[in-house]
Amino acid sequence: MFGPDFTFLGVDRCDLTDPESFADADIVILGAPFDGGTSARSGARFGPKALREACYLPHDGSRPSLALRVDGLKDLRVYDAGDVECYSGDVETSIANIEEAVHTIASSGAIPLVLGGDHTLALPDARGVARHHGFGQVSMLHFDAHADTGNIEFGHLYGHGQPMRRLIESGAIRGDRFLQIGLRGYWPEPETLSWMAQQRMRSYEMTEIVSRGLETCLSEAFAIALDECEGVFLSVDIDVCDPGHAPGTGTPEPGGLSARQLLDSVRRICYELPVVGMEIVEVAPPYDHADITAYLGNRVVLEALSGMARRRHDAEHGTTWDPTRPLLDGR
Amino acid sequence: MFGPDFTFLGVDRCDLTDPESFADADIVILGAPFDGGTSARSGARFGPKALREACYLPHDGSRPSLALRVDGLKDLRVYDAGDVECYSGDVETSIANIEEAVHTIASSGAIPLVLGGDHTLALPDARGVARHHGFGQVSMLHFDAHADTGNIEFGHLYGHGQPMRRLIESGAIRGDRFLQIGLRGYWPEPETLSWMAQQRMRSYEMTEIVSRGLETCLSEAFAIALDECEGVFLSVDIDVCDPGHAPGTGTPEPGGLSARQLLDSVRRICYELPVVGMEIVEVAPPYDHADITAYLGNRVVLEALSGMARRRHDAEHGTTWDPTRPLLDGR
Amino acid sequence: MFGPDFTFLGVDRCDLTDPESFADADIVILGAPFDGGTSARSGARFGPKALREACYLPHDGSRPSLALRVDGLKDLRVYDAGDVECYSGDVETSIANIEEAVHTIASSGAIPLVLGGDHTLALPDARGVARHHGFGQVSMLHFDAHADTGNIEFGHLYGHGQPMRRLIESGAIRGDRFLQIGLRGYWPEPETLSWMAQQRMRSYEMTEIVSRGLETCLSEAFAIALDECEGVFLSVDIDVCDPGHAPGTGTPEPGGLSARQLLDSVRRICYELPVVGMEIVEVAPPYDHADITAYLGNRVVLEALSGMARRRHDAEHGTTWDPTRPLLDGR
Amino acid sequence: MFGPDFTFLGVDRCDLTDPESFADADIVILGAPFDGGTSARSGARFGPKALREACYLPHDGSRPSLALRVDGLKDLRVYDAGDVECYSGDVETSIANIEEAVHTIASSGAIPLVLGGDHTLALPDARGVARHHGFGQVSMLHFDAHADTGNIEFGHLYGHGQPMRRLIESGAIRGDRFLQIGLRGYWPEPETLSWMAQQRMRSYEMTEIVSRGLETCLSEAFAIALDECEGVFLSVDIDVCDPGHAPGTGTPEPGGLSARQLLDSVRRICYELPVVGMEIVEVAPPYDHADITAYLGNRVVLEALSGMARRRHDAEHGTTWDPTRPLLDGR
Amino acid sequence: MFGPDFTFLGVDRCDLTDPESFADADIVILGAPFDGGTSARSGARFGPKALREACYLPHDGSRPSLALRVDGLKDLRVYDAGDVECYSGDVETSIANIEEAVHTIASSGAIPLVLGGDHTLALPDARGVARHHGFGQVSMLHFDAHADTGNIEFGHLYGHGQPMRRLIESGAIRGDRFLQIGLRGYWPEPETLSWMAQQRMRSYEMTEIVSRGLETCLSEAFAIALDECEGVFLSVDIDVCDPGHAPGTGTPEPGGLSARQLLDSVRRICYELPVVGMEIVEVAPPYDHADITAYLGNRVVLEALSGMARRRHDAEHGTTWDPTRPLLDGR
Amino acid sequence: MFGPDFTFLGVDRCDLTDPESFADADIVILGAPFDGGTSARSGARFGPKALREACYLPHDGSRPSLALRVDGLKDLRVYDAGDVECYSGDVETSIANIEEAVHTIASSGAIPLVLGGDHTLALPDARGVARHHGFGQVSMLHFDAHADTGNIEFGHLYGHGQPMRRLIESGAIRGDRFLQIGLRGYWPEPETLSWMAQQRMRSYEMTEIVSRGLETCLSEAFAIALDECEGVFLSVDIDVCDPGHAPGTGTPEPGGLSARQLLDSVRRICYELPVVGMEIVEVAPPYDHADITAYLGNRVVLEALSGMARRRHDAEHGTTWDPTRPLLDGR
Repeated sequence: MFGPDFTFLGVDRCDLTDPESFADADIVILGAPFDGGTSARSGARFGPKALREACYLPHDGSRPSLALRVDGLKDLRVYDAGDVECYSGDVETSIANIEEAVHTIASSGAIPLVLGGDHTLALPDARGVARHHGFGQVSMLHFDAHADTGNIEFGHLYGHGQPMRRLIESGAIRGDRFLQIGLRGYWPEPETLSWMAQQRMRSYEMTEIVSRGLETCLSEAFAIALDECEGVFLSVDIDVCDPGHAPGTGTPEPGGLSARQLLDSVRRICYELPVVGMEIVEVAPPYDHADITAYLGNRVVLEALSGMARRRHDAEHGTTWDPTRPLLDGR
Repeated sequence: MFGPDFTFLGVDRCDLTDPESFADADIVILGAPFDGGTSARSGARFGPKALREACYLPHDGSRPSLALRVDGLKDLRVYDAGDVECYSGDVETSIANIEEAVHTIASSGAIPLVLGGDHTLALPDARGVARHHGFGQVSMLHFDAHADTGNIEFGHLYGHGQPMRRLIESGAIRGDRFLQIGLRGYWPEPETLSWMAQQRMRSYEMTEIVSRGLETCLSEAFAIALDECEGVFLSVDIDVCDPGHAPGTGTPEPGGLSARQLLDSVRRICYELPVVGMEIVEVAPPYDHADITAYLGNRVVLEALSGMARRRHDAEHGTTWDPTRPLLDGR
Repeated sequence: MFGPDFTFLGVDRCDLTDPESFADADIVILGAPFDGGTSARSGARFGPKALREACYLPHDGSRPSLALRVDGLKDLRVYDAGDVECYSGDVETSIANIEEAVHTIASSGAIPLVLGGDHTLALPDARGVARHHGFGQVSMLHFDAHADTGNIEFGHLYGHGQPMRRLIESGAIRGDRFLQIGLRGYWPEPETLSWMAQQRMRSYEMTEIVSRGLETCLSEAFAIALDECEGVFLSVDIDVCDPGHAPGTGTPEPGGLSARQLLDSVRRICYELPVVGMEIVEVAPPYDHADITAYLGNRVVLEALSGMARRRHDAEHGTTWDPTRPLLDGR
Repeated sequence: MFGPDFTFLGVDRCDLTDPESFADADIVILGAPFDGGTSARSGARFGPKALREACYLPHDGSRPSLALRVDGLKDLRVYDAGDVECYSGDVETSIANIEEAVHTIASSGAIPLVLGGDHTLALPDARGVARHHGFGQVSMLHFDAHADTGNIEFGHLYGHGQPMRRLIESGAIRGDRFLQIGLRGYWPEPETLSWMAQQRMRSYEMTEIVSRGLETCLSEAFAIALDECEGVFLSVDIDVCDPGHAPGTGTPEPGGLSARQLLDSVRRICYELPVVGMEIVEVAPPYDHADITAYLGNRVVLEALSGMARRRHDAEHGTTWDPTRPLLDGR
Repeated sequence: MFGPDFTFLGVDRCDLTDPESFADADIVILGAPFDGGTSARSGARFGPKALREACYLPHDGSRPSLALRVDGLKDLRVYDAGDVECYSGDVETSIANIEEAVHTIASSGAIPLVLGGDHTLALPDARGVARHHGFGQVSMLHFDAHADTGNIEFGHLYGHGQPMRRLIESGAIRGDRFLQIGLRGYWPEPETLSWMAQQRMRSYEMTEIVSRGLETCLSEAFAIALDECEGVFLSVDIDVCDPGHAPGTGTPEPGGLSARQLLDSVRRICYELPVVGMEIVEVAPPYDHADITAYLGNRVVLEALSGMARRRHDAEHGTTWDPTRPLLDGR
Repeated sequence: MFGPDFTFLGVDRCDLTDPESFADADIVILGAPFDGGTSARSGARFGPKALREACYLPHDGSRPSLALRVDGLKDLRVYDAGDVECYSGDVETSIANIEEAVHTIASSGAIPLVLGGDHTLALPDARGVARHHGFGQVSMLHFDAHADTGNIEFGHLYGHGQPMRRLIESGAIRGDRFLQIGLRGYWPEPETLSWMAQQRMRSYEMTEIVSRGLETCLSEAFAIALDECEGVFLSVDIDVCDPGHAPGTGTPEPGGLSARQLLDSVRRICYELPVVGMEIVEVAPPYDHADITAYLGNRVVLEALSGMARRRHDAEHGTTWDPTRPLLDGR
C-alpha cells in the first residue's frame, strides 16, 4: 500500500478477488498496513513493506532452511495477496476489511499469514480464521510483552491494547485456550488481571519463564492448546523480544526474550502444532536501527514456514527432525 | 497526551472546562496529537509534545524576541490548555473533539493556536474559528508544499490531504480568500486543480515565488486576505520548508522555503494582519534529526506570538517596527 | 533542569526546602543532571529527564508490577524532588549540592533514589546516605562494567572513574562491604587492583559470573553485605549491561549482563535486602537508540520500587513471593 | 539488484534483451547499483533502489507537475529496464556492461536515464550515448562539487574521480563542450586544473556562481553546449547540493547549491536543451536521513522528465512556458 | 585527547613545550576538548577530533583551494599542537590552561587557531591573543546565533553563555570593537541588551542582515574592526548557521546563515583583514548527521587558512583576487 | 587508508617494507579496508579505522585484562603495519596485495592479525599464512552466520560469499580441518551443502549449538583442529553475533551468539590453541549505532591478544588460568 508493490521475498502474487489465483495455496500472505490502533508510537503501517523486504539474499522465492533442511517458500505453495486497504484513521472499516480478507483465505483452505500493522489486527485475524474453523475450535498462542486484554481505551473498543478481550468476548477464541508467552512490566492493572483469570487464560510472565525454563513452559502450553482444539493461531508481537533485539517497535518493554529464543519457539510451534493462522505485528520501522527488527520479523515468518514445511515432510516420510544432528550429516 | 504533562515553554496552564481559567487569555495553545489522517509516514502525534519542548532555554514562560523587542509569552496572556484527547484510529470523533475545543477558545475571545498533529486538523481548527467569527468572514493563509484539496482518499472524506476542500465546501472559508504559499511537486492532479480554480483559490507555487519574489507574493496575498474579511487563519504545514530545513515530517517535498523565509513570513503575517487562529502541523518527531524540525516549529509559534505582541504594542504606542534598525539602538 | 519540569511517571512533587512536603515519604526521587565528570562521551546530564519520561504508559503515578503484584508507585509513598542544580563545569560545587540534598532526604527517614547523571554522583549519593546511617554502617552493591576506583584523573580527585575510592578513603563505606557485580574489560591497571585488594573489596568480574552463575554470586554477595551492616546502597551503572541492551551510555564495554539479568538482580536486592539508598547512572540519551537505554533505566527504578513494596508487603502479611507462580493464580 | 524488483514509481517494465519491449520508448530508465569506484564512503549501490522508491505518493506511473502542467511519466513513454548486473569488486566488467546497456537504449532512439551508483558511471553512460550520436557530437552538462578529472587513483584508471578525463581522452565528449556547474573545495590539485584548462573545459566554481548569479552562468553554458553539438548529456552528482540538502552522499562538500536551485536548473536544461542522455549519481542511502537525499534525487528525475515533456508539448503546440504564471490560471 | 592522536588533515605536529618545534609557524592549531560550559547539550568535547578528521581527501597536509588558488596548508607554515588537557568538570583550570597555551602561540608570532570545544573558550582564546597584542588592540568578529554576554549562569562566571562579557570586562577586547554577526532568537533578555548597548557593541541580528544584505553588513563591520585596532580575532560559533546546515551543535537556533554564506564571510575576513587569532566552536558530534556539521567546520578552517594565504600572496605579488574570474582561466 | 593515520590503540607502528621495523614482533596488525566483495551492504572499508579506534580509554598501547591478568598489548610485542592499499573496485589486485602483506608478516615469524574489510579477505589472509606454515598444515576456526562457501557469484570467483571454497580448492586449508561455528539462516542452498559435506567440513549450526551447548561444541572442534595440524587460523565474522549485539554489519542474520559468548570463545581459542593467524571482518560502521559493533570488534582483538599472552605466560611459568578465581585474589 505504501511505496512499490512487491511480494514477500519474491513469492508469487495472488489476488483475493480471483479465487483461482490461490486455489492451490498452502499459505497466503497478507499485509495489513494499519497503525491507527497504537496507544503510543505509530509507524507499524510500514511493517508489511519492511517484513517483505528485509533480507540480504535475492528475492527469488526460495529460502532453504539450514536448520530444518526444507525450503519454506518452495516446499509449500506460498502466495502473497498484497495489502488490504487500511485507513489508519478508521479502525472499524479497516478491521472489517481485514477480517473479510483473512476469512477469504481461510475458507479457501489455505493458512492466512498476516504481516502487521499494529496488534489491533489480532481481532480480525483470529476471528477471520475462527469463522472458518469454528468459534472455540482454535486455540491461541500469543507471544507478547503485553496481555492486550484492555477493555475501553481512548473511548474505543478497538485498538492494539484490547483485541484479546474482544476475541474472547466474541467467542471466537476460548479464554481457557488462550496461551500467552513473555508478558512482563506494569500493565494491565489488577481488575483486568482478574478478568483474565476469570476467563481461565494461561499467561506465562517472564519471571515464570526464567524460573521454570522456556522449553518447559512451551511444552505445558502446547498440551493445553491441543486440548479440544484442532488448530492453533499463532500471534507474534515483536515486542515479546527484548528491545536490544527488537528496538523497532511501538511499546518496547525491557527484559524480554532473545531473538534466538523467539525463533526457536516459533519453529517448535509450527513443527509440533497444527497452525491454521498466523500474524506478526508491531514492527515499527521508524524506530528500527539497521533494520534489525525487520530482519527478525522476516525470519519469524521464514522460521514458521520452515517449521510447517518440515512438519508436513516428516508426516509424509515418517521421519523426525533432530536438533542435535550436525549440519553436514545430510538431511 | 503522550508522556509527561507540561505546557508550552512553561506558560500557565488552563482548563477548557473551566472558563475562568482562561478568561483573560489573548492566546490559548492546544495540542492535537492526532496522526490517523496521514497518507504516508505517521508520527505527527508526537508533534504537540515536541513543539512544546524544543528549546534549549529554561521553560520559564518568557521569550523576549531580539528582532521584535517584545516578549510574546509575557506581553500577551498565553495559556496552554493541554491536549485534546485524540484517538488516531477514529478520525471523526477526533476532529469533532478538536473543533469543539477550538470553538470554545475562539468563543472566549482568545486566539486558538493549535499544535498538531497532522493536517487533518485544518478542518476542525479553521471551522472552530469560523463558527465564532462567522462563516466566510475569515480568510486563510496556508503555508504548505501541498494543496490539501483532495476529495476522497482511502475511501474517506477526512484525512490530511483533504481538509481545505472540506473547509470550502462547508462554507467556513471562502474559496477566493484561500491563499496558499509554497506549493510544489506532483500533486494534486489536474481535476483537483480545476476544482481549485473554480473556487477561485490563489495558490503560489514555488516557481512563481522564485520568479516574482516571496515578499511580493506575500504582499499581494495579504491584500486579498483583507478584502471583505476581518480575520485571518494562519495554517503552517512544516513541509512548506525544504526537507533540508525540516526533515521531520511525513510527506517531504524537496525545493521548499528556507527556515529563515518561513520565520520571516510568519512574522510579517502576525505583525501586519489580524490573525484570529493558527495551527502548526505535520512535525513528525520520529523522522526528525537533532530535533531541528521541532525547534523550527517551536520558533514558528514564537515568531507568531512575537509578531502579534509587536502588532499590539505598535497599535497602542503609534510606533512602527523597522527591520533595518540595529539590535542595540534601543527599541 | 533541562527542558520542561515534570516528575517521575507522574508521582507527586515535593520540595526539599519544605520538609512538610515529603514528611510521609518512603522514597524521594532526585535528579542530578551532571556529566562534567565523564572521561569520554558526555550526555548523561539528560539522564534524569529521560529516566523520568521513558515509558509508553500514561504518567499517572501508578505502575502495578505483573511479576510482584504490588504497585511500587502507589503502595509506597513516592515523591520527586526535581533536579539538584548542577553545573557540569564545576564538579566540586555540584557534588556538594547533591550530597546535601541526598542527606536531607535520608535524614527525613526516606530512601533517596538518585537519577544521574554520571557516576561521579556515587560519592555524594552514598556519602549523603552514610552521613545519616553512620559511616561504615551501609554496605555497597555496585553494578558496573568498571570498578570506578581510580585515584587522580585529568588532575582531579573527582570524576566518574574515582568515586568508589573516595568513598572508601572517606570511611563512608567499608572496603570489605563493597560488592561489585559485572566488571570486565581492561581497566583499571594492576596497581589499582592491588589497592582494591588491600581494601578487601569483593569484585565479581564477568568471567566469574559466567562460570559460577549470577544467582550464586549474588547470594554470596548478599551475605557479605548484611554482615555488620544494617543497610545497603544500590548503585546501578547502566553500562553493567551489554551495549546491545544499553547502547546509550558513555563508556560501553561489550560482554555485559542482559537487561533481564539486571532487572532480576535489582528485584532480588530490593526484595531481599534493606536498601537505604539507590542511584541509577550513566544513561546518556544522545547515544541511545529508540530510547531503549532510557526505558531500561526507567524499569530498573520501577523494579527496585516494586521489590521494596513487595518486601514491605510480605513483612506485613507474613507472605513470601514465589517466582514460579503463574501470573493468573492470584496474588 | 538488491532487494525486491520494482520500477521507478510504477512505470512499465521493459527488458533490454527484448527490443520490442521498449520499441516505443521516449525514455528508458536503467539502474546501475555500483559503488566500487568510490574513494571514500560507499553505499551508492543502493541508489537505484532508493531513487525508484523515494516518494510518498502511490507508485502509479503518473506524476503531473504543478509547475510545468505536464505529466512526465505519462506524456512521455517511460520504461524501466531494471538494474544492470554490477559487481562492485570489478569495475571494468561493470562499466562494460553498463556501457552496452546504455548504448542499446540510445540506439533504439530512446533517451537513457541512469540511476547510479557512483560517478564512475559517467564514463559508460556518456560513452554509450556518444557511440550512438557520434563522438564529439554530444556536449556535457555536469553538476558536481568535484571536477572528476583525476588521472590515476588507487593505481586505477577507472573510479568515481576520473570519468571526465577518460571521456575527453576517448574523444567521446569534446573538452570544450564540457560544462561543469557547482565545483568547490580543495580538489583537484593545480596540475589537473592545468590539464582541464588545456582541454578548454568550462568550469563554474561556486564563487563565480555566487558572484555572477546561477541563471547567468547557466545561460552562458547553454550557449556553449549548443555550439556545434546536437545533443546534451546531463550528469547530476547529488553532491552539487549543499550537504544540508543532500547529506546522503559519499563525498559531501559544504557550500553547494540549494535543492531548489538544482531542481530549477535541471528543469531549465531539459526544457531548453536537447537532452539525449542523463544520469543521477552518488545518492548513498546509508548516510541519508529521513530519505531526504533520495527524495531530492527522485525529484531531479521527475523535474527532468517534466521539462522534456513540456519541451515537446510546447514544440507541438507552439506555446511557451511562463514561470511567473499563477498555478490556477489554467495551462 | 579523546581517542587516537593525529593532526589536522595531516599537517606537522608541534609541541608547545618545545619552542623550536614551531619557531617558523604562521599558524598553530590547538584543540580544546572542553564542553563543561554548555548550558544545554554537551558533546562539543569531541569537536577537535571531528574537525581535524572530517574530510574525504587524504590527510596529506595539502589543500589547494579552487576558489583562491592557494594551498592554505602548504603556502602557510601550519602546525598542530594537539589538545590542551581539559577537564570538563573544572572550567577554571581548563580555561587557565587554554589561555596559557594560546598566549604561548601568540607570543611566538604565530596565529593561534583553536578547535573547540564549547564557546566558553572565547575567553581564554581571545584573552591569550590580547595579552600578546595588547588589551584593547584587537577587535572581535563574532559569528553566532547568540550574544554570549550573559553575566552569571548556574551560579558561575564562566560558561558558554558569558565569555563575551568577561572579555569586555577584563579590557581584553573593547566593547566598541565587538562585531557580532548572525544573532537571532530569544536570548538575551533586555537588561543584557542594555549592558551590551552601553558597551557600544555592534550586533547584526538576522533581521538586519536579511534587510540590508550580508555583504553590506560585513563591509560596515570591517570598517569598525579596523578603526584603532591592528588585529582581528575571528570567533566562529557553528550555530550561526541554520540547523539545516549545522545540526550538530548544542543550542541550535533556526533561521541562520547558509553554509555558503558562512564560508564566504570567513574567506572575506581572512583575505581582507589582519586576523591574529581564530576559533571555531560548538561543533557537537553526537548530534551531527553524516558528519555534515564537522565537514562544515573543517571547511571553515580551510577557508580561513586559504584566505590568509591569498592575502599574503597578493601582498607579496601586488595582485588582487577576483571572485568572478572563471576557474580555468589561470590564477 | 581513509582519514587520519593512527595505530591500533596506540601500539607502535611498523613498515612492512622495512623488515627491521617488526623483527621482534609477536603480532603484526594489518588493515584491509576493502568492501568490494560484499553482496549486499557495503561499508566494511571503514572497519579498520573503526576497530583501531573504538575504545574510551587512552590510546596508550596498554590494555591490562581484568579476566586474564595479562596485558595483551605490552606482554606481547604488537605492531601495527597500517593499511594495505585496497581498491574496492578491483578485487583481484586487492587480494593479491593483501596476501603478500600477510605472507610477509607470517614469514617474519609474527602472527598476522588482519582488520577487515569484508570476508573476501579470508582467502588472502589464510592463504598468506598457509604459504608460510605449509598448505594443509593450518586448521581453520571460522565464526560466522554464513558458510561462505559459494562458488560463482555475480559472475566472479572472488567475493565475501566464496573465500572458504577457494581456500579448500587451493589446498591451503584442508576441508576436514575446517570448523565453522554459528551458521544459521537460509544460505547456502543444498548443492553447496553437499559440496561442503564432501569436503568433510564440520559446521556447527546454531540449532546444534543451542541443543548441545557452545562449550561442548567448541571442545569437540578444538580436538579436530589440532589433529595433524600445528596451527590454527581464527576467522571472526562479526555477524556470528546476533544483530542486537552487532548491528553494524552487512548481512545481519537474527538468532546469533551474544557478545559475551563470542568474547569467551575467542579467549578460549587463543588461550588453548596455537593460533598462527587471525582476522576480524565485516564490521560496517555506516550501519553501526553508538559504535557498539566497533567496540565489540575491538574487544575481540583484545580478547585474542590477551588469550595469547596468557597462554605464553602459563607456558613459561607452568601456571593455569582459572576462570572461577575472584578478581581480587591476585594473579
